[in-house]
Amino acid sequence: MRLKIAVFVSGRGSNLEAIIEAIEAGAVGATIVTVVCNNPDAYAVTLAKAHGLDVFVLSHKGMSREAHEAKILEHLKSRDVEFVVLAGYMRVLTGKFLAAFKDPAGYNRVVNIHPTLLPAFKGANGYEDAFAYGVKVSGITIHLVDEQVDHGPILAQRAFPRLADDTLHSFRERGLAVEHALYPEVLAAIANGGVASLLLRDGHGHIEAVARSEK
Amino acid sequence: MRLKIAVFVSGRGSNLEAIIEAIEAGAVGATIVTVVCNNPDAYAVTLAKAHGLDVFVLSHKGMSREAHEAKILEHLKSRDVEFVVLAGYMRVLTGKFLAAFKDPAGYNRVVNIHPTLLPAFKGANGYEDAFAYGVKVSGITIHLVDEQVDHGPILAQRAFPRLADDTLHSFRERGLAVEHALYPEVLAAIANGGVASLLLRDGHGHIEAVARSEK
Repeated sequence: MRLKIAVFVSGRGSNLEAIIEAIEAGAVGATIVTVVCNNPDAYAVTLAKAHGLDVFVLSHKGMSREAHEAKILEHLKSRDVEFVVLAGYMRVLTGKFLAAFKDPAGYNRVVNIHPTLLPAFKGANGYEDAFAYGVKVSGITIHLVDEQVDHGPILAQRAFPRLADDTLHSFRERGLAVEHALYPEVLAAIANGGVASLLLRDGHGHIEAVARSEK
Repeated sequence: MRLKIAVFVSGRGSNLEAIIEAIEAGAVGATIVTVVCNNPDAYAVTLAKAHGLDVFVLSHKGMSREAHEAKILEHLKSRDVEFVVLAGYMRVLTGKFLAAFKDPAGYNRVVNIHPTLLPAFKGANGYEDAFAYGVKVSGITIHLVDEQVDHGPILAQRAFPRLADDTLHSFRERGLAVEHALYPEVLAAIANGGVASLLLRDGHGHIEAVARSEK
């Protein structure tokens, strides 16, 4: 059984493209049953349609967050979506939305990618903030989503360097290459072995399903 | 001319040992002209003496921070110390101390090692905090010291993984191995080319000498 995923996008869709290509190449045992986008002008919509995918576009403008999410949830149910994959989706999901994808094991079946090594540099400008801080090592994080922004159990992290002659552009390009490699790998692992295969275990062999709160 | 350094310690002195061994092996163009310790019972004192080093032990107990630092500064001046190397020194340095080691280029000639990828997991329990959060990638940071705790221009960072079957002990041991390799490398670079060789440059070729404040 292939895992039925929905990919949520707001912009260019470069991670969507990487996931599509990995699926088309047979590397990920999942099917994109729908692409959800809150921005009618996003290039990701064009991209998804070009690959013959189901696309659900609904602007959030002029709607309450709850009403917007309710329409999306209704659509996801109509497509039997099992796992939600956020790929540059610039809207925060409510607890009500997450509850609709809660696994019996206690975590949410919603995954996100963030362009820094969380918990460092949360927020919408990860590349810019890490570059401006002057880090020599940054990285990509893929994590399950909870009700805090850029927070939740970490499924994968991969580091990449900032080189001495990097510009923000070259730094970001290096990170994007890691994003586009790592997201399909993680989705393949989820489709094969489930989320539990990626969660850490504590010293007693119990799965650790939560990122701890910041101090 | 070999760089005259003082190494500050409070505990076991495992980084001091790594630095001593690298110097004795000819890998670092520096001389430890004194070891400063605020804890008379620290193993680092025994270690330093065993290597025939000058050791200055002064407990901070029963003294003001200013009085304690003044005594240390007096000793450092007597030894012509050019660069201060913090290696597990568990005291925060004041702006007055740092001012005594200010380089004409504007940064402080005081370097510290921290067992996480700053700005993540500041504070005295870096290994524990990163492990408990559930990171899959952590790392070591070496940075110039400013008046904020675990903050200042980053000179080097090196990542290491948390593996699925790690205990806190095995995770920390892996990090310590990186610490013991990285600190001598950075000190060798400082002794050879100066701090400027390690600072990042912005898009216009100017050296970026400051870590930005957190948001």
